Amino acid sequence: MKKLNVILLSTLFTAISVQTIAKEFVLTDTKADIFVGNWSITNKDMNISDKAFKIENKVLVGGKQHGSEVITLTSEDFSLSVSPTRGMSILSAKGNGVRIGWDSPIDEVVNPAYINLESRGGLGWLDGFNEMMVRCGFEWTGHPVVVDGRTYSIHGRAGNTPASNVVINIEEMPPYTIKIRGLIKENTFKNSKLETQTELRYVPGTHSFTVHDVLTNQSDYAKDYQIIYHSNFGTPLLEEGAQFFAPVKEISPFNEYAVKGLKNWKTYSAPTKHFDEEVFNLVLLAENTGQTMAMLSNKANDKAVLMEFNLNQLPVLSLWKNTDTLKQGYVTGIEPGTSFAYPVTIEKAHGRVKQLQPGEKTEFTLIYTLLTNNHDIKHYQDRINNIQKQARTNVIEKPILMQ
Amino acid sequence: MKKLNVILLSTLFTAISVQTIAKEFVLTDTKADIFVGNWSITNKDMNISDKAFKIENKVLVGGKQHGSEVITLTSEDFSLSVSPTRGMSILSAKGNGVRIGWDSPIDEVVNPAYINLESRGGLGWLDGFNEMMVRCGFEWTGHPVVVDGRTYSIHGRAGNTPASNVVINIEEMPPYTIKIRGLIKENTFKNSKLETQTELRYVPGTHSFTVHDVLTNQSDYAKDYQIIYHSNFGTPLLEEGAQFFAPVKEISPFNEYAVKGLKNWKTYSAPTKHFDEEVFNLVLLAENTGQTMAMLSNKANDKAVLMEFNLNQLPVLSLWKNTDTLKQGYVTGIEPGTSFAYPVTIEKAHGRVKQLQPGEKTEFTLIYTLLTNNHDIKHYQDRINNIQKQARTNVIEKPILMQ
Amino acid sequence: MKKLNVILLSTLFTAISVQTIAKEFVLTDTKADIFVGNWSITNKDMNISDKAFKIENKVLVGGKQHGSEVITLTSEDFSLSVSPTRGMSILSAKGNGVRIGWDSPIDEVVNPAYINLESRGGLGWLDGFNEMMVRCGFEWTGHPVVVDGRTYSIHGRAGNTPASNVVINIEEMPPYTIKIRGLIKENTFKNSKLETQTELRYVPGTHSFTVHDVLTNQSDYAKDYQIIYHSNFGTPLLEEGAQFFAPVKEISPFNEYAVKGLKNWKTYSAPTKHFDEEVFNLVLLAENTGQTMAMLSNKANDKAVLMEFNLNQLPVLSLWKNTDTLKQGYVTGIEPGTSFAYPVTIEKAHGRVKQLQPGEKTEFTLIYTLLTNNHDIKHYQDRINNIQKQARTNVIEKPILMQ
Repeated sequence: MKKLNVILLSTLFTAISVQTIAKEFVLTDTKADIFVGNWSITNKDMNISDKAFKIENKVLVGGKQHGSEVITLTSEDFSLSVSPTRGMSILSAKGNGVRIGWDSPIDEVVNPAYINLESRGGLGWLDGFNEMMVRCGFEWTGHPVVVDGRTYSIHGRAGNTPASNVVINIEEMPPYTIKIRGLIKENTFKNSKLETQTELRYVPGTHSFTVHDVLTNQSDYAKDYQIIYHSNFGTPLLEEGAQFFAPVKEISPFNEYAVKGLKNWKTYSAPTKHFDEEVFNLVLLAENTGQTMAMLSNKANDKAVLMEFNLNQLPVLSLWKNTDTLKQGYVTGIEPGTSFAYPVTIEKAHGRVKQLQPGEKTEFTLIYTLLTNNHDIKHYQDRINNIQKQARTNVIEKPILMQ
Repeated sequence: MKKLNVILLSTLFTAISVQTIAKEFVLTDTKADIFVGNWSITNKDMNISDKAFKIENKVLVGGKQHGSEVITLTSEDFSLSVSPTRGMSILSAKGNGVRIGWDSPIDEVVNPAYINLESRGGLGWLDGFNEMMVRCGFEWTGHPVVVDGRTYSIHGRAGNTPASNVVINIEEMPPYTIKIRGLIKENTFKNSKLETQTELRYVPGTHSFTVHDVLTNQSDYAKDYQIIYHSNFGTPLLEEGAQFFAPVKEISPFNEYAVKGLKNWKTYSAPTKHFDEEVFNLVLLAENTGQTMAMLSNKANDKAVLMEFNLNQLPVLSLWKNTDTLKQGYVTGIEPGTSFAYPVTIEKAHGRVKQLQPGEKTEFTLIYTLLTNNHDIKHYQDRINNIQKQARTNVIEKPILMQ
Repeated sequence: MKKLNVILLSTLFTAISVQTIAKEFVLTDTKADIFVGNWSITNKDMNISDKAFKIENKVLVGGKQHGSEVITLTSEDFSLSVSPTRGMSILSAKGNGVRIGWDSPIDEVVNPAYINLESRGGLGWLDGFNEMMVRCGFEWTGHPVVVDGRTYSIHGRAGNTPASNVVINIEEMPPYTIKIRGLIKENTFKNSKLETQTELRYVPGTHSFTVHDVLTNQSDYAKDYQIIYHSNFGTPLLEEGAQFFAPVKEISPFNEYAVKGLKNWKTYSAPTKHFDEEVFNLVLLAENTGQTMAMLSNKANDKAVLMEFNLNQLPVLSLWKNTDTLKQGYVTGIEPGTSFAYPVTIEKAHGRVKQLQPGEKTEFTLIYTLLTNNHDIKHYQDRINNIQKQARTNVIEKPILMQ
């Protein structure tokens, strides 16, 4: 186990540059031939006494999860798990007894070695999908499409790419910020050299975590990219009467099936047989900085998950209402992205596929916060309402799909 | 290693409920994070002195079998091997020096991580096929077909699904019945949650073993299922002059190529170059209970494998005569199933695709017995002849295929 | 670790049969359940004092290379690495500070478990391609093509097939020849039983290594085969002004794009954006024995890689000029083969697909030599020029492609 004392420069989001002492633990490094496997560390191991936390890495065994790694971070009443083997996806989080995540029919953390993304006509991704947050991208995303005999499988490859480099960085002074970093390489000769340095930031004791990804086009050619942060929530946040809050500039149904859902798109049904899924394409309003937010709140409005992000990074949002039965997967997706979930061909035609120049980087930041009292929830709802004052929601009754 | 003393209820097939003391050894449990790997136990380890047996689990290494597990059970002159990694398939058995199984060109126990079921136009399953018994199902089975761009690969996924839970259960009192259980999950979001609790039962010292599978539709929707128990036998049972015995109500050729084989479909040729394969669709007759049997017997009629099963569970049977050269795979398949081997689309159109309601279970029981003396073989042939008295075999000269 | 003292018969290439004492180290044997994993040996371990060498086997970890093995052989100023997991491909070599190999955008030794050869319309091979020499074959090779719904993926399966048997053989007397052997099985029921016993031979202290493969059709039927020894070189051998030397009987452009490259096909450009790739089909001239050679030499003509092979074994050669940018993969392929790189259907139609009868073997020998002084390079250029005297190069201006 390599321990490195590193001097970290302040992040992009800190106004004043402060040098921080942190310890770095390399769990995986393909270049240095490091794969630590089962491992754990606590605040005590670091001689920290005023804040309790534990980070544990585990190599799962058996079935289709054989060899998959899961990092679990716990602090006080909060926990969070991430799978390096599954593209640094966030499996679930929990705070104050409230789970952020959902129950998929897939109850293993499937090793991508057992997944064929192109199976079922490009729907092989569904064999492993059970995360609270999975990155859909970056080479392409969206529903599958076949172009000239080549399949663009649903939601791309990143979520089924084992991380090449996994590092835990723990600050040695308050607030002891913990960073879980993983490098996801989408490298294919003549096609792609998109590398994503993912980072999950958590301050022990809080109910909030930040995803901060830096995507770099490592190739010498301009390359298209797409990303959807597929963020998924089931019970107990999702329930009959649960509500979606966001400042919405425009909404349209993804397809004909979703049209009927427009009349009550902000509220959720109980688990409903044959509901299947309704998807809506949303464009949000934002504060001057581009910062905006979306929230899922339970019926009593005393439990919610808040997502904060920036429209300059993630201009559109897919709202996925999959309030089918519990066993089928009772879940809603709040999915900020550069694209909607249409096939890449359609997104391209609509001008929603972005490009990175050679060597160019772009970054994405999302803050997820668990709120467990009505007062805090109302505070953010007020802020959302305030942004909404900029304009009324334009409801487009027909799918915008162009093929 | 977890050892649990469990009280087992009598099985469904025991008339009187008797409680039995047994020891249970968990080899794999994805939920409890157990993967024992190399392991063995003997009767002595269990303080059993009046019956010798050994069970050994081994993780294979190298080539495309790297990581595949094989459980081998031996008792007196009998042995049996099962691969948890390959869907609890039975690799082969042997009793009194007589092998039940065959020699496939594939001489490794291929880890499904190295198999792409959709390769070669849906024939990727052929990269691993070498078992004595492989479950073809359960989401679909049969020859490959592409529907709306989605490939239904040959014989489904079960045989290439690593077991999520593997347990060895050994009764501590005579007859010391050994059960090898494995849970196969065919879980895909929005598509399938078919789980099969497989069980292989063996009484030490005998020449017989029972496959008992319970298939459960764990989803909230009615789901189609199909199963073919692809049971395959080569030398020494299969040889020139070997014969197939079963009470047959109706037989038809699978395709035009098999038509010419109708004239001597009950007897087998020596290994024959360019024979390729002849497949016949059989409907059997049965006793009142639905119980019936099929047998492959060698030329001298002193070595045979008997299969007993119930038409209420497995109404049809495919007879696969692949008496090609030894290296090509000299083998016959006696394959009771819910379906013939036509693509799922055809089986569906013919009404042979069954359905399970939400939460519904169904079970399948097959008893395989090695017979090594003419007297025993004659006994079962008499029973087969007796059932055959119900009706003459209706020979349909043309393939029933409807497309 | 098994150590076997074996008596080796002289090779096919030694005129007089001399018995040699050698030690054999089995790293992998699927039949004997051997997988040694991390391992190394030096001349000292073998009580050899007059020649230094070290052979090391390492199991890589992390990312998509998790579980891939790499054997590295070093002696004095020379080193060489081979990956058993990737079909015994040669990753790179280095002598006197000069690298033989290239920099692919893929910087991991990808475990085939993470590769779907049929992805991207049959271009999945590009997810792992970074070797100095990868065998493209043997069941088929060339650009992908779909025939009756079956995809022939680019360059076949051998390069993504983990070796079933890996043996290091070291002679105990001068010149202490080291042989790295690996068995590659392309076995698919009813399709293929082509087995290739690969051998890499190296005499410690030299700058040369020999690939000697024996391909056997283990099936009872005549089987087509194809092979292209895809040998790839980047910097420092490849550079602006680097040159290709070979006695060429005939050259034609692979496609329309390559036509414009005919005017200076023997020289190489600097890394050039948008160059993409030019491929040329070459038929070489040879000495009486069929022996011939091809060479890549740098601009100063003081560093070169020489390839020697026999037209009776490898009648055609593809010259792949991929002098695109460094990050895109600045590389040239000198690829002797039985076929050009057209899809198997086209190669078949042109009569370039060979066949092996049942049990028949064929062999391929290629010698790679690093030359690091102008005198040696000139010597071989003279030999090439001498062979070229047989005929002028016939330049065919149009692609020979027939579809």
